[in-house]
Amino acid sequence: MEAVDTLLHAAWIIPVEPEGAVWPDHSLAIRDGRIVAVLPRHEAQARFTAAAEVHLPRQALIPGLVNTHTHSAMNLLRGLADDLPLMAWLGEHIWPTEQRWVDATFVEAGSRLAVAEMIKGGTTCFNDMYFFPEQTARVAAECGVRACIGMIVLDFPTRYAQHADDYLHKGLALHDAWRDHPLIHTAFAPHAPYSVSDAPLRQIKVLADELDVPIHMHVHETAVEVAEAITRDGCRPLARLEALELLGPNFMAVHMTQLMDAEIVLLARTGSHVIHCPESNLKLASGFCPVARLLAAGVNVALGTDGAASNNDLDLLSEMRTAALLAKGVSGDAAAVPAFQALQMATLNGARALGIGDQIGSLRPGKWADVVAVDLGGLDRQPLYHPLSQLVYTAHRDHVTDVWVAGRPLLRAGVLTHLDEAALIQSAREWGVRIATTPQETSNG
Amino acid sequence: MEAVDTLLHAAWIIPVEPEGAVWPDHSLAIRDGRIVAVLPRHEAQARFTAAAEVHLPRQALIPGLVNTHTHSAMNLLRGLADDLPLMAWLGEHIWPTEQRWVDATFVEAGSRLAVAEMIKGGTTCFNDMYFFPEQTARVAAECGVRACIGMIVLDFPTRYAQHADDYLHKGLALHDAWRDHPLIHTAFAPHAPYSVSDAPLRQIKVLADELDVPIHMHVHETAVEVAEAITRDGCRPLARLEALELLGPNFMAVHMTQLMDAEIVLLARTGSHVIHCPESNLKLASGFCPVARLLAAGVNVALGTDGAASNNDLDLLSEMRTAALLAKGVSGDAAAVPAFQALQMATLNGARALGIGDQIGSLRPGKWADVVAVDLGGLDRQPLYHPLSQLVYTAHRDHVTDVWVAGRPLLRAGVLTHLDEAALIQSAREWGVRIATTPQETSNG
Repeated sequence: MEAVDTLLHAAWIIPVEPEGAVWPDHSLAIRDGRIVAVLPRHEAQARFTAAAEVHLPRQALIPGLVNTHTHSAMNLLRGLADDLPLMAWLGEHIWPTEQRWVDATFVEAGSRLAVAEMIKGGTTCFNDMYFFPEQTARVAAECGVRACIGMIVLDFPTRYAQHADDYLHKGLALHDAWRDHPLIHTAFAPHAPYSVSDAPLRQIKVLADELDVPIHMHVHETAVEVAEAITRDGCRPLARLEALELLGPNFMAVHMTQLMDAEIVLLARTGSHVIHCPESNLKLASGFCPVARLLAAGVNVALGTDGAASNNDLDLLSEMRTAALLAKGVSGDAAAVPAFQALQMATLNGARALGIGDQIGSLRPGKWADVVAVDLGGLDRQPLYHPLSQLVYTAHRDHVTDVWVAGRPLLRAGVLTHLDEAALIQSAREWGVRIATTPQETSNG
Repeated sequence: MEAVDTLLHAAWIIPVEPEGAVWPDHSLAIRDGRIVAVLPRHEAQARFTAAAEVHLPRQALIPGLVNTHTHSAMNLLRGLADDLPLMAWLGEHIWPTEQRWVDATFVEAGSRLAVAEMIKGGTTCFNDMYFFPEQTARVAAECGVRACIGMIVLDFPTRYAQHADDYLHKGLALHDAWRDHPLIHTAFAPHAPYSVSDAPLRQIKVLADELDVPIHMHVHETAVEVAEAITRDGCRPLARLEALELLGPNFMAVHMTQLMDAEIVLLARTGSHVIHCPESNLKLASGFCPVARLLAAGVNVALGTDGAASNNDLDLLSEMRTAALLAKGVSGDAAAVPAFQALQMATLNGARALGIGDQIGSLRPGKWADVVAVDLGGLDRQPLYHPLSQLVYTAHRDHVTDVWVAGRPLLRAGVLTHLDEAALIQSAREWGVRIATTPQETSNG
């Protein structure tokens, strides 16, 4: 008998690799934080002795979800200002509130709330872009989730930094501080083509190559962004980024609702990744990312929730469902983005976009044991003809029962193992009361 | 002190009438199944003595949701065949399975599963269209939910009826049997313009006027439907229905993804209702209903889930969120269908479409006490700036804790009061196994 740390016995294992596989009555063995084997239950019981065995008789095990675009700390602004046009939302609500409130304390509290929400919803890895990222890195590490922390860069001053060089300097210090941590990765996060000028983008290109880290950027979020760039720069933002040599397998372009055929070819040719945030794009009326066409062209498309101020949740299971539904509507093809492809976008494609597709994103022996159990036994998931369909089209994050990151349990039977949920709710409420009573928000009350 | 049966004390009451109101720390008094008063808690406690008092300190009370288009019994086919083009879905999966399986027993079991799912999700009234509607009526009445049961009509034979006259005959018997029941209403349900010819539609028009019941019909679901009608009839389906004088305040047109400006004007002028099923339209790639334009023109737009075979749930809270998000995306206006309007579509507009807007659809004294409590206290709903936003954009049906229909509790603290949930799950599983092992489904397994 071979000794392992943990054996998970599930009703189904949906490993994502190989494609489309759904294995009934299978077990997953974990040792030293990594997946040792995925095999039929009776074989697992014959081959392994485990320090801990977990029986999940109604659950499907899937890889931990990868939220490839969010602004965690914005959880404190969830639902602050909804149903408004983008510029009114930003200019009259989000930016003034950020200017007034966003400091290290805010980011620490918001990130902690977000991480708890993500763990409860089956997200085990997130790609963040926000101010005071040192706080978010620390919270993620403390909470035991995997994160890619953005080294944010803007041309203009905020309470976090004064100018592009200052942002870069702080970002590099962050990178150095976390370079050896097993859970924390970093990426350059130049905010958007309209907020970062050529000089810092050139620096970022050199540094990203040197440090071998990804670049994470909002690109072509709206038609207005593209039109203004043409007026200002004489070309579309993607063309400018290409001229700056930013596109490539290290580049994550978030949103991409405005895409011409030649641009899809360009993304495919350069191996750039597209991060699709369907619920944010809908809510802010930003446009429709042509996901089916991108996938057909061979572009790696991953999923993000965006921040809670524009979604209003960090629920990647819901995002997966919205992505599958919306792709069908937008392409006019009911066969577009079938259930498996939606799950792949939310797991392996996200891992690939972050450059860690060999480490996480599927339940393959050798990878980290980032694993999520979803209960498919409830009334609203019956009958159950196809677990993959049920997972994508009927399951909800409240059906996530258990979550492990690198083999460590972070959620057991729906309960956070290392976080005090009641205290987090209380803290969020107190922040909400403080923020709601600041002058610029009274008109919205 | 005035005696009432029940007093509900909630953190907020969102009555839908008056528009946009959110009343903190309010109570709702119920006597003889009807709402007596909605008032501040301290006033309620000073004015009423109640046989039962229910404290809902984290909950918002909203009117019971009205699911204005579904095929309840299809719950047994949930997720049977997903990610397929409409005609392959219907022709190769749904129709053969229905032909093999749909009888009174199937409809009884499927309806019961659907009703349980709807109660748990806060739906207190549904508008159904399916075969063997006598079973659905009986199940709804037994379970204590409100329903409008479709007197289905088709030109062609099924296991339920042989020809249009046979369907009509059975429908009229259903109408007579239930005409005095307080919870059960009926509507004529001619399936669609392409499946019902002029002669039965003329009969339905006469009978609907005579009995004063609504007409519930799929109309303009897809572009193909419209194109084929032009070839066959020389006009678009809506024009044919207008010529047959079916349009009017008794007419519910379901789907309506294909609409020209003049048709929107026609719907508004005739007072016809549009039933929007956004998730089904997306999943089957049917097209986009122009909800914002319809509402701007003054058309009453209500919401439906469609059947579980094309959704894959009967979750009206989720449909509300999808409707709000999709309307913004489709109209390009982030202010389109704000949270309140989405809730109105899912409640009062549905009641109006069914012709019972004076009886249900809002928490107004005198109306039936069809009331739903939604927990807004959870981690993923914090901070809470605007309860209406949180309800629409972050709440989920698993946050529905309590449901009353005509003052009778059907769900208490998430538990069905009159239905055995474990037995329903077991029954659904057994049906699923039987159906999955029939020959036409093995290729899909």
